[in-house]
Amino acid sequence: MSTYVLVHGAWHTGDLFENVADFLREAGHKVHCPTIAGNRPGDAKSVGLDEAVRSIADYLENNDLSEVILLGHSYGGMVITGTADRCPDRLRRLIYWNAFVPNGGECLNDMVPPHYVALFDEMSAASGDNSVMLPFPVWREAFINDGSLELAKSTYDKLNPHPYATFTDPISLSRNPAAMEIAKSYINCTEDTALPQSLGWHPRLSEKLGLFRLVQVPGSHELCFSAPEVLASAILEAGCD
Amino acid sequence: MSTYVLVHGAWHTGDLFENVADFLREAGHKVHCPTIAGNRPGDAKSVGLDEAVRSIADYLENNDLSEVILLGHSYGGMVITGTADRCPDRLRRLIYWNAFVPNGGECLNDMVPPHYVALFDEMSAASGDNSVMLPFPVWREAFINDGSLELAKSTYDKLNPHPYATFTDPISLSRNPAAMEIAKSYINCTEDTALPQSLGWHPRLSEKLGLFRLVQVPGSHELCFSAPEVLASAILEAGCD
Amino acid sequence: MSTYVLVHGAWHTGDLFENVADFLREAGHKVHCPTIAGNRPGDAKSVGLDEAVRSIADYLENNDLSEVILLGHSYGGMVITGTADRCPDRLRRLIYWNAFVPNGGECLNDMVPPHYVALFDEMSAASGDNSVMLPFPVWREAFINDGSLELAKSTYDKLNPHPYATFTDPISLSRNPAAMEIAKSYINCTEDTALPQSLGWHPRLSEKLGLFRLVQVPGSHELCFSAPEVLASAILEAGCD
Repeated sequence: MSTYVLVHGAWHTGDLFENVADFLREAGHKVHCPTIAGNRPGDAKSVGLDEAVRSIADYLENNDLSEVILLGHSYGGMVITGTADRCPDRLRRLIYWNAFVPNGGECLNDMVPPHYVALFDEMSAASGDNSVMLPFPVWREAFINDGSLELAKSTYDKLNPHPYATFTDPISLSRNPAAMEIAKSYINCTEDTALPQSLGWHPRLSEKLGLFRLVQVPGSHELCFSAPEVLASAILEAGCD
Repeated sequence: MSTYVLVHGAWHTGDLFENVADFLREAGHKVHCPTIAGNRPGDAKSVGLDEAVRSIADYLENNDLSEVILLGHSYGGMVITGTADRCPDRLRRLIYWNAFVPNGGECLNDMVPPHYVALFDEMSAASGDNSVMLPFPVWREAFINDGSLELAKSTYDKLNPHPYATFTDPISLSRNPAAMEIAKSYINCTEDTALPQSLGWHPRLSEKLGLFRLVQVPGSHELCFSAPEVLASAILEAGCD
Repeated sequence: MSTYVLVHGAWHTGDLFENVADFLREAGHKVHCPTIAGNRPGDAKSVGLDEAVRSIADYLENNDLSEVILLGHSYGGMVITGTADRCPDRLRRLIYWNAFVPNGGECLNDMVPPHYVALFDEMSAASGDNSVMLPFPVWREAFINDGSLELAKSTYDKLNPHPYATFTDPISLSRNPAAMEIAKSYINCTEDTALPQSLGWHPRLSEKLGLFRLVQVPGSHELCFSAPEVLASAILEAGCD
């Protein structure tokens, strides 16, 4: 029995990981799906990266979790990297699932193509509260390309505006991920085009981990919705010793 | 029920898409497999790219097709791009299957490695009618690498010399594919080595589409012969809304 | 019925290919699994690349093998390339399985990232006999990432220190692989991270073969242990005419 903590991506909440968590629980594991500060109902959209990281580090401490297999999806990679720097003694392994891998001083936007940054800058300026949303056509074609239109719509309706400061705040780390001694895995969905594959997740970002275990599965950036059981299998392969 | 028009690649005819079309028809769709000017029995091999494009645009108009899902394979990507520029109002979505994606002013040879251009230049010069064929060893090892030798031979026998001007004529477009407002998908066969993968189809050419839906399946450049049902499934995933 | 000769990688022996060979034998083929000089029990670890190549060329001659389908895994790619240069008339096809492809004058270390060369230099200097071993964490995470911890341990116990001169000796060839007239295939395991995928096996090394047949399968660098039947199927697809 292992303890998994699944940290969601931008626009998501922990609730949206519950169907994946159920498959892991059926396999005998304990699973937590916290929601990062800034994405909880009622959270101010002015939350920055430090507060986001602190909310997950606090979650581990408040629940006194240990030997945790800590997974981060997409933006969640920023958060688990910061958490690993703050409470390494509570962790057994990090799993990045099509996730950003920051070195100290980098922000998420540093790893994103310029046309996305420009789109986000524009949307956040127009939002009134420095939040960003993803236009539906981008969600449907580039994030959940392996799902039906119905699934794309029903899941889009569950997203929440994302606090943009968490994309523009540089992360502060006492050491870079490659220098962290903890075991690391990277799950890469081979049809993930949320980042253009010419400037993609793997190997561009995964190799910033130093030694890591690669697990690949077919699927999009939103495999948690389009095939949660496939994602759960990949997590188990990534999470074992 | 959707209307699919499947546009073949160089050396092929529309007939060679019929086994794929049958799977789509079984799924309830209407499917057309026209042959591009220059590849029809008896066509002069002096046909250029404009005439090739016009033959497909005319096909849509003569059959009064609308809401068409227009697929192009390989060289067929040149033809559907030109067709989309000429009659956008008849189309619902473009699907490129390991296909060339030209910007205005580009020719197919601009996207092909120099050693292929040199081979084609030589063959066309020797042909007497400015046509090119593919040497059998290239067909067998790099185009239909996932088929048996028997299949490689029986399909090679059905190919026809290709009008080389369609590779060297620059395409004229009123706007580039990324600026076309129509929905677009790209099907990438992951073992396709018809272009060397270091200078390959996806993401090098697919990303010229701007926002597009990626569908990937195992298989070679000639999946229409080696596993038509797999290709048909990919087309349905690429073609839905 | 074909004759296969399977040439293992660094740290391995021919015995470790026997479970793959059994699947090929069941399919009706004759299979040999020789051990390269330097990896046989009792061999001096001072063996260089010439002696390694000669041991396989001699094996073909001593057993009077002809029409051989000669497969090399990883370092074994150096050895089969040298063998093909010495006795081309005994061969029907070369199969590289996530293997090095040298041009004349290149050594294996020329194709490996600097941090691996530095690690090997250090280990060989400390070995007393110019041999190198692979640290277990690298084996577990980057070589056999698709296996269980138990499998990683039980197979690691069967490895032997590798004669480092075979990594640093340049190969002498009368012609480069692309110029060899023999048929060639490359099997690429898509989760192989023994070389970082940013500087990986395929297409970086495979394309040095010139015209070749690509076969890809899911799996790690050590698919011979984690899924021998999947590797055997890939070999049959790569080995047919």
